[in-house]
Order: sequence, then C-alpha cells, then structure tokens
Amino acid sequence: MKNVVLLGSTGTIGRNTLDVIRRNSGAFRAVGLAAWSNRDLLLAQIREFRPDVVSVGKAEDAANIRRRLVGRKPEILSGPEGAEALAAETKGDIVVSAITGFNGLRPTLAAVKTGKIVALANKESMVAAGALLRREAIRSGAAFVPVDSEHSGVFQCLAGRRADEIRSVTLTASGGPFLRTPLRDMGRKTPAEALAHPRWKMGRKVTIDSATMMNKGLELIEARWLFDLEPGRLRVLIHPQSIVHALVELRDGSVLAQLSLTDMRIPIQYALTHPERRDGILPPLDLAAVGALEFIAPDERRFPLLRTARWALGEKDSAAVAMNAANEVAVEAFIEGKLKFTGIARTIESALAGLRPRRLDSIGDIVEEDRRVREQTRSRIGKRK
Amino acid sequence: MKNVVLLGSTGTIGRNTLDVIRRNSGAFRAVGLAAWSNRDLLLAQIREFRPDVVSVGKAEDAANIRRRLVGRKPEILSGPEGAEALAAETKGDIVVSAITGFNGLRPTLAAVKTGKIVALANKESMVAAGALLRREAIRSGAAFVPVDSEHSGVFQCLAGRRADEIRSVTLTASGGPFLRTPLRDMGRKTPAEALAHPRWKMGRKVTIDSATMMNKGLELIEARWLFDLEPGRLRVLIHPQSIVHALVELRDGSVLAQLSLTDMRIPIQYALTHPERRDGILPPLDLAAVGALEFIAPDERRFPLLRTARWALGEKDSAAVAMNAANEVAVEAFIEGKLKFTGIARTIESALAGLRPRRLDSIGDIVEEDRRVREQTRSRIGKRK
Repeated sequence: MKNVVLLGSTGTIGRNTLDVIRRNSGAFRAVGLAAWSNRDLLLAQIREFRPDVVSVGKAEDAANIRRRLVGRKPEILSGPEGAEALAAETKGDIVVSAITGFNGLRPTLAAVKTGKIVALANKESMVAAGALLRREAIRSGAAFVPVDSEHSGVFQCLAGRRADEIRSVTLTASGGPFLRTPLRDMGRKTPAEALAHPRWKMGRKVTIDSATMMNKGLELIEARWLFDLEPGRLRVLIHPQSIVHALVELRDGSVLAQLSLTDMRIPIQYALTHPERRDGILPPLDLAAVGALEFIAPDERRFPLLRTARWALGEKDSAAVAMNAANEVAVEAFIEGKLKFTGIARTIESALAGLRPRRLDSIGDIVEEDRRVREQTRSRIGKRK
Repeated sequence: MKNVVLLGSTGTIGRNTLDVIRRNSGAFRAVGLAAWSNRDLLLAQIREFRPDVVSVGKAEDAANIRRRLVGRKPEILSGPEGAEALAAETKGDIVVSAITGFNGLRPTLAAVKTGKIVALANKESMVAAGALLRREAIRSGAAFVPVDSEHSGVFQCLAGRRADEIRSVTLTASGGPFLRTPLRDMGRKTPAEALAHPRWKMGRKVTIDSATMMNKGLELIEARWLFDLEPGRLRVLIHPQSIVHALVELRDGSVLAQLSLTDMRIPIQYALTHPERRDGILPPLDLAAVGALEFIAPDERRFPLLRTARWALGEKDSAAVAMNAANEVAVEAFIEGKLKFTGIARTIESALAGLRPRRLDSIGDIVEEDRRVREQTRSRIGKRK
C-alpha cells in the first residue's frame, strides 16, 4: 500500500488520479488532498477517500468543510502554506504535484526537499525552476516520476538505456484544435473554440496552451530537466491521433516509441505504481481500429511559440521563467476576452523582447522574476486595450 | 574488435551483414564465410574481407577458389560439413546464421553447441527445432540475438522488462504484394508478381513467404522460442509501411514499439554490436516525411497460412517441422510454375491434414520428419500435375 499526497485534487489530473486510486483498491491510500477553490468537490473527495490531512485555499472554506463533516475529520489546512505543509507531510510515500501553473512551484519544492517520490504533472514548476529542483532533488534524494503522457512515454522508452545511446527525444503534440485552420483565420478564434480540444479533456490553461502549442514548448523545457537532456536533442512532432506519446531515437537509427490510448489515467497509474506495473483499467489499444497514425512537422508560422520556447530552452534560467509568466498572464487575458488568440504569442514575444536571460539561483529570485514579468505583461495588455 | 563467422554470406542477409562490417571498419572482422553455390561472389568476398576460413557447397568450387586466390589463402572447406565446421570455428565470437531454410539448422545447432552468440536470421531452424535449440543453448551458454527486423524490435522493446509485465507481443507484417488484390484474383498471381515485394528487398523464399504471410507465421513460432513467450501472447498486425517492426503491450495498457527505416542493416548492426550500439549508417527516420503509419488486422481468408501457423504454434514439435517442410517444397513448386499461388496454402494444408503432432527430441527425429513430409508433399504435387 502506497500513501499518496495529491496536490491539486479537484483539477483534471487530480480527479483522474483519484479515479486510478479508486480502481486499484488496496494499492494506494490518498492520505492528503490539496485543492484551492473547489470546496464542494474537495468535501466529496474527503468523504470518499478519508484522507488524514487536507488543504484548501481560504480559511473560511476550511471552516465550512470542518462544519459539514461528521465523524472522524482530517486535519484541515488552508492557504498556500497549507499546500506546502501537505507536500512535506511525512505520511506520504509519493506526492502527486498537479496544481496548475506557477502556483505549483512552492509545494513541489517542499515535496522535493523532503526527499519523496514526486509524480510531476505541474510542468510550470520544472519550466521555471528546473535547475533548482534538480539540485534540491540530488540533495534530498527525491525522485521525479512524470505524469504527463509525453514525459511518461519518454521515461518508459529511456528505461534501461544509457545516455550515450540517445540521439534525440521527440514529444508528440496533437496539434490542438487549430492545426488545420487557415492562418489568416487564427486571429478570430474564440476562447470557446480554443477550449474544444480534439483529443484530450484537460483543464483550461493547458487546453489553451495546447492550441498555441506553448504546452509543447513548456514540455520540452520540462523534459530537459526531468531527463537531463541537452536542448539540441529535443524535438516536437505533431501527431493528431495522440496515440504515440514519445519517441526516443537511438544512435544506431533505431527508434523506440511509447503508445497508449489517449487517457491520462494510464500515465498516472504508472507514475503511482512505478517501478512496478499493475493491470490496466482501460481496454487494450487496438491499432487496427485506430487505422492510421499521422505525423506532421510543426509549422512555426502557425505555432510561433514553439520557436519562442526553443529559444528559452537553450537560454539561462530567467528566459523560461519570463516566458512562463508572460504566457500565464496572456492565456488568462485571452480567456477573459482581453486578447485575440494571436495576441497570446505577440504578448509573450514583446514581454521577452528586451530580456537579458540570467541565472536564478534561489526560489526568491525566481518568484521575483515571475512577479516582475507578470506585472509588466498585465500592464502591457491593459495599455493595449 | 568482434570476430564474426557468417553462414550464408552470399544471400541477402549475408551481403547486408558484410556491408555493416565494411561500414564499421575496425569494429568487426569477418573471420569465416560460408556460402553454397555462388562461388564467384564468395571469391570476391574473400578478396575483400580476408577471412581465415571459408566454406562452399561443392569440393570442385573449393578447388576453383583455391586456384584463383593469390597470396595468403583461407582454409577452404566444402559441403554441409564445411558449414558446420565453420559454425563451430573457435575464432568466431559471434555466428551470423543466415542460411535460408531448413538447411540452416545443422550449422545453427553447431554454433549453439559451442556456446557462442548466435545472431539468428535463419528462422526455419527455430521453427523446426526451437525447443531443442533452446535446450542446447542453456546447456552450452550460447545466447541468441535476433537479426530479423521484427524480432530485433521485440528484443529491444523487451529489454529491461520482466516477463510478468508483458501482456502481448505483436509482429508487424507489410502484407506483401497481394494485400489489396481481390480475393478471386489471388489464384492467378505469378511468381514474378509474388516476388515484387513492396517494401523489403529479400531472397526469393522469404519474399514468397511474405506474399502468403507464412513468413509471419514462421516468425511467430520463432518469437515463441527466442523470447520464451506463451503462444497465446503472440499477435500479427499488418503495417504496410514497415516502419514499426514490433509492439510490446504491457499489462497496464502501455505499448512500446520499435521503429526504423525499412533496411535490414539496422537490425543486423544491432545484432553485431549488442549490448552496445554504434552510430547508424543510414539517415535518421523522418516520420513527418513518411506521413502516416497504417495498421490493418490480417484477413485469414486472404492469408490462410496465418491460421495454419497459429495452429502449429500451439502444437507439439512435429507440427511446425511438417508445416515448414511442406512450405519449402510448395514455395519451390510455385516458383517453378508447378503450383498456383493459392496452391501453396492448399498443399500445406493437405500435408498437415492427417498429422498427429508429437514431440521430437533429437536432431535425427527432426531431420527424419522433415524428410518424410518433403517427400510426401513432392509426390502430392507431382500427382496433381
């Protein structure tokens, strides 16, 4: 029985993680759950999974939950410190880090510092603080297991290979809802259209990131740090069926790939069971039923943020922090109707235009750089309106 | 530097193996070459690769080669005993077993008995004597490394996995030249049409086997013995592009696949370098240029021999021996115009109709069963004419 602490339990990854736990009864116990604003779902999760500790965004929500529970109650924390305390909670064998965006960084760091297994779904923390998190993991003995389907695919293909066998690592991308939209129509695409992802059911932030392919850019940077890969070895390939998640090219020209149904419960389950595997909870992949797997080289005119991410990938720490911060602000502004779809990329590009990338050695420096770029980006968007 | 003994040096696998050796100068030395009837090519190979020992079919060809060589001459053997002696030659670190058909069995067994690494391209020997070869390998410490692209793919996907993680193993098949031929036209297909394989440039026997898909049936049986897999876990999937060579399904629903360009020098090189890898001699695989990878469930009305092979796969030893013998005779008869294309399957099915499969414990029993079925099949084909 593995004890799981789940940060971000009410999000898409969180709910899928709990479904994996539910369907593997006896294998895992959810000892800690952290949510932010979805109080009612958190309450339902507490009733079903009976964790020892939970955390929620506001103190009043914590009080509300406490009131509504009967019988044995978990310890109920609140605020950002609550999530951090939960991440460091000693009862957990494995921490699933599934808070979306930069907000996931501090809890992830707290989990890493206590030397746990960190099942990482929060790519933004690796993007903003990859070097720092790696250093802390080496110090504490923490191990990262990827949760993202693409990184789980890479992880599984790399298993047992030596670094000098690897020529390149390719993450696939569905291409999102606008893969075949005429370029001149991209500017008119609405949040509702961008949120209609053809393959994956995910949260809003990552769905918009998928439409711009910034998601894949963030994943490239995440892969760099997760697997200690040289930036030049990382590739992206569009694969609309989202069945092949990753490809690892070996030096002799042989390529290993990982495939599965387009369902995040498969990589989530592997992240929880690794290094073991348990029987799948889904029907087997039937390639004859899928028919054809297509592969398309990404077009950087359609997805200019891929080029931006490739730049950040090769630059010093602050480039990725700034790119991520500008992206979070721009995506929010797009969802709120303050930016056109094509404005997301333009906003990020101008946020980065004057940047001189530099090393950021501490979490304080990272948080400060993130804050600075967010403010600047917000004020730029405000002015434009 | 690895010393390579190459059995079947003038065939397609043999010539590709020598090309791999040529392009990896300094890594391998061809210390022994065995050919059968292609005397002139063998002579050219001796001049280029300067082996210590060679073997050829007839004594007069041995004499002819000896006469035409100037300077340092290799030891020149002849006959089936020559190939066997070469297989057991102590100078070799690795024996590439690439003689086509049942004739490859005795030399393969000789190599296995001396405890070498056997790079196996001769699938018929595993089909006819899989259990025996496995027993002998355990006794001598010999190790098998697959040369076939499909088995090399399986081998690479299985590396580092435990047996209890494997749910199924799928070999892909191009489907051959008649994948889309109307069923009613199959009977009229000529040897020239059957020999025009759409993807792989191979010898005549294996190309016809590919058109009937008996090749894949033989490979299923080979995979059973090479990887010690239960027959029920083995699958076939048609994949016309021949880029994905094998798929290994794990118990959690994740699937690992091995891909490469359709060029047998890739698996041959890996068989020679394993457990290491060396840089490839071909351009990298460009999936965006390939575009789409298709997968089709095989139709047993079109490929009835797949069903026959699946039967043999689950039966006692003599079933596979008989099927292989009947197939070799039928393929020869088809090439010589004595059988229609659809007559190959019908001939094999009637050869197996009365068979009561039994265990065959010795090479003598296997050779005797093979001889018996060949004679019977020949006489049946003779009568039909």
